[in-house]
Amino acid sequence: MRLDERLDQAMDVFWERGYYDTSIDQLIVRTGFHRAEVYGRFGSKQRLFEAALRRYREKVISAFFEPLGRPDAALADIDRFFRGIYDGAAQPERRRGCLMINTASEVSPHIRSVARIVSSYLDELGALLRRACVNARKRGELRSDADVDQVADYLVGSVLGLWMLARSPAPDMMLRHYVEGILASLDELGSEPRRHRSRGSRSGQG
Amino acid sequence: MRLDERLDQAMDVFWERGYYDTSIDQLIVRTGFHRAEVYGRFGSKQRLFEAALRRYREKVISAFFEPLGRPDAALADIDRFFRGIYDGAAQPERRRGCLMINTASEVSPHIRSVARIVSSYLDELGALLRRACVNARKRGELRSDADVDQVADYLVGSVLGLWMLARSPAPDMMLRHYVEGILASLDELGSEPRRHRSRGSRSGQG
Repeated sequence: MRLDERLDQAMDVFWERGYYDTSIDQLIVRTGFHRAEVYGRFGSKQRLFEAALRRYREKVISAFFEPLGRPDAALADIDRFFRGIYDGAAQPERRRGCLMINTASEVSPHIRSVARIVSSYLDELGALLRRACVNARKRGELRSDADVDQVADYLVGSVLGLWMLARSPAPDMMLRHYVEGILASLDELGSEPRRHRSRGSRSGQG
Repeated sequence: MRLDERLDQAMDVFWERGYYDTSIDQLIVRTGFHRAEVYGRFGSKQRLFEAALRRYREKVISAFFEPLGRPDAALADIDRFFRGIYDGAAQPERRRGCLMINTASEVSPHIRSVARIVSSYLDELGALLRRACVNARKRGELRSDADVDQVADYLVGSVLGLWMLARSPAPDMMLRHYVEGILASLDELGSEPRRHRSRGSRSGQG
């Protein structure tokens, strides 16, 4: 196997099993690396994991980001982005979630260099969504008073929720209903504000 | 320490470190159990983990569920429920997320008995939110054509997203913006439907 194919195998093991439950022995069996190579080339299981996580970002995440990649991406592209994640996440073999988001929960609280990779992913995702929101507002697809920072951050959290739900034992229908809710809230953001109801949670009274 | 205090200590270790990265030795130090007791009383690290997870549900989750507990809970209670999670999740010591949801990602894909505990939690959360949505629709707080199953599942996914974002290295402001987005989408669900825009993602044309 070529080096990048071996790294793909390591990525797959970590994606399926997580970081802490993966042993060096399992990595050796799957990647075909010799033990001395894992240490010689990467230095430790942690460094091999970080290399696999970077490869995941380049290979897997970049494909999901594609709809948001054009400088003029707008509301329809955000919609397409979420539908793409749903289509991926709902596949039985993808009910394993997203390696980056699994890692955000499992590893990033404990290893600073991993937290930096996750932070940089969250920053990039937020920036892509924010740019699409700015474009959408300019085009009148988002209402003129929409707070694009708030909306972009809401959408980042929704990406985490979608992948998390996919990895959880939630029924398929729950996953489908969840993404429908995200797309509906996106749709509502295009409407001009109206009289708030007496509950007043968004009326500035509270 | 009493047994339930020891179980609280075990719960805290698993909450902070996750299941796979916690060793029996760490559990012994924190709980004061003797090694023979861990095996004699629980049988294995896995059984001790399941006991700690059940205790977490009884002690921690039940407090978060409180706003949804009344049989007549409705929209304001869903709002209060999410604000309660946000208030908990945003505290620096709570940026460790929710043990149940961390477990949904880390452990439930691998251990069937743990997946059952997580599934039962998701079922209960979904049922509480659904009941509140049904009440809200009856009272006219949700629009008459709202699909309560869909809305309840959307809200379950949002709970996962909120706790996941809290455990991730996302900035505090992102967490705040995310919960604002959830509350705004809840608010929108109270409005009667209107003419859909030309994009038509919810107009049944697509």
